[in-house]
Amino acid sequence: MDLLDKKYLLAPGPVPVPPKALLAMAQPVIHHRLPEFSAVLETIRADLKYLFQTRNDVFFFASSGTGAMEACVVNLFSPGDKVIVVRGGKFGERWGELAETYGLEPVYIDVQWGLPVQVEVVKEVLTTHPKAKGLLMQAHETSTGVKHPVAEIAALTRHTETLLVVDAISALGVYPLPMDELGIDVMVAGSQKSLALPPGLSFVALSDRAWKRVEEAKLPRYYFDLRKEKKALGRSTTAYTPAVSLLFGLSAILKRLREVGLETLFAHYARLSGACRAGIEALGLELFSQAPCEALTIVKVPEGVDGLQLMKLMREKYHVTMAGGQAKLKGKVVRIAHLGYQSPLDVVLALSTLEMALSELGYKLPLGAGVAAAQKYFLQEV
Amino acid sequence: MDLLDKKYLLAPGPVPVPPKALLAMAQPVIHHRLPEFSAVLETIRADLKYLFQTRNDVFFFASSGTGAMEACVVNLFSPGDKVIVVRGGKFGERWGELAETYGLEPVYIDVQWGLPVQVEVVKEVLTTHPKAKGLLMQAHETSTGVKHPVAEIAALTRHTETLLVVDAISALGVYPLPMDELGIDVMVAGSQKSLALPPGLSFVALSDRAWKRVEEAKLPRYYFDLRKEKKALGRSTTAYTPAVSLLFGLSAILKRLREVGLETLFAHYARLSGACRAGIEALGLELFSQAPCEALTIVKVPEGVDGLQLMKLMREKYHVTMAGGQAKLKGKVVRIAHLGYQSPLDVVLALSTLEMALSELGYKLPLGAGVAAAQKYFLQEV
Repeated sequence: MDLLDKKYLLAPGPVPVPPKALLAMAQPVIHHRLPEFSAVLETIRADLKYLFQTRNDVFFFASSGTGAMEACVVNLFSPGDKVIVVRGGKFGERWGELAETYGLEPVYIDVQWGLPVQVEVVKEVLTTHPKAKGLLMQAHETSTGVKHPVAEIAALTRHTETLLVVDAISALGVYPLPMDELGIDVMVAGSQKSLALPPGLSFVALSDRAWKRVEEAKLPRYYFDLRKEKKALGRSTTAYTPAVSLLFGLSAILKRLREVGLETLFAHYARLSGACRAGIEALGLELFSQAPCEALTIVKVPEGVDGLQLMKLMREKYHVTMAGGQAKLKGKVVRIAHLGYQSPLDVVLALSTLEMALSELGYKLPLGAGVAAAQKYFLQEV
Repeated sequence: MDLLDKKYLLAPGPVPVPPKALLAMAQPVIHHRLPEFSAVLETIRADLKYLFQTRNDVFFFASSGTGAMEACVVNLFSPGDKVIVVRGGKFGERWGELAETYGLEPVYIDVQWGLPVQVEVVKEVLTTHPKAKGLLMQAHETSTGVKHPVAEIAALTRHTETLLVVDAISALGVYPLPMDELGIDVMVAGSQKSLALPPGLSFVALSDRAWKRVEEAKLPRYYFDLRKEKKALGRSTTAYTPAVSLLFGLSAILKRLREVGLETLFAHYARLSGACRAGIEALGLELFSQAPCEALTIVKVPEGVDGLQLMKLMREKYHVTMAGGQAKLKGKVVRIAHLGYQSPLDVVLALSTLEMALSELGYKLPLGAGVAAAQKYFLQEV
């Protein structure tokens, strides 16, 4: 019971879910082969095209985002295929692990954690490896907060035989990634980020030329077989039992997103992240990312402060869950997400918690200064 | 749908309800005459005694708090009875209206809004009116934020024939009011305050000598007839159909309160209100109450600011609902409650919203200064 320990979730997934989506998911479960459920699926499929900014079909699985990444690998490639992998954080590494697991031949573009991949380097690698079947990357690295230049890279890959496969799991709906317009071939997303739903649903959208590869690809696949899903889609259903309740929630969220519009959604996240960065800078703290994305703000733990102790204090005393660093960043950064059901006041709350916790750990900072900078940002006084 | 307009409720009832209580209330409704529901009632009744700090029975009704105030009037008195009414705000006035409605003869102690009643004045009135059957007052006036000296007044009434009837609707569980120890005869409470439940349940606890009056009282009563409730209690049930779902929620909350303990609960509210007052003072704003209670902080709307516009801005732009002034205080004060499912970060949120809204309305204040003072308070640097 949580009467005296109200909890706040400010991690980059899972995220807070709006009450109306919780209520939608609390509806009685209905059978997934009924016509009334097909009607729900049809609406979801139309709305997903709007969200992905594509004319093509968007598929979904009952899985985490990693499942959809795996779906890309097994549906698009054949053993021995060469793929270029942008590796500048934990999720870039995941693309590499998937490629290696399935016997592909990854060509790595290793990028220093905290920096975006350089377009010139990508261009060079694409030229050196014209037979590469795919380029696997993140829209931004959730482990480092770095936004990669997807649009610029898409402008290169669209004129090659290399499919651009973008992990937009924590990017979709946060900032513009107009798939068709940019020429992104495959885009992956998950439910527990800007869609403000619990984890459990993942998404894959594919361009026409990516679909041709699905038909040619020789890797074994069953649960994540997009060919089966495409057939099922033609019958207004899904290949396997879908996550009925999550899809009720998704339907409610997507309806709301269409009402609100993508522009408003993007502006919302830009505002939250802009204010948070202003707050962090006002506190004299350093951002980890050299090219910060709008989905999360990553702050370096200042010299002399134990990062793990800081996270623990925020979690146990203030009941605020931000994310710590992953892998080599463990204990070195704090990741404040601006995802899901959040308002400007959540940025105030995050900064205030960070200020109090750092102060308690003996780090000297002007209490309230981060909050004040965020307030000024929200009031557009800067 | 609330995806981009996350709402915050900081009013003195209704209050935010913890998720686990919401879940408890979402349980299937069971029939109220079943043994399994009687078991729930028994636990609730034991736990209510702990919360009211009394050995006597605590009764409850499906009604708002006003219903329980009415229950006091109709169960304790007879037409023509003289009652002393402390009237220093909207809820003092309500006691008077109830007394007049039922043909009692109220003797008013009028107190300037913003000030507590003076014990000397009460003593004098009790002496002048030794036949007064009751003294009706508030533990604190929710309309003015003023805490009345209940303990001192109880020390007077316990030696007279005048029953002390205390409206503790927004006070129970917020600060100590040990009923038996102080000699409070009747205490009234409601579900939508420190109990962190939705509105719809009210409570009345009575001393032994108050019970004797219930048996002698001649006012007509039916729904609020405590004699019927006492009989029903003997059979582990209620006289009329109880609010089953709210009682499930109550059972969960009371269980948690016993785990936490009253001391911790009181300390929690003292901390929230102390930090909020520190924040208001740091902003150079004025408190309305000369004797502030822990349940809410009432701030005077500063000169030159339109109080109604201020409330509207906080509600519509920041989606934060505090309470405005009632009756003659309309537009003149902002009431920030520290009730229900709240944490220190809600105080930060309240102060931050007030700062931004006042600033937007052209009032000059140091943005973040209120938040910083609250943070310092929480860090016990003051």
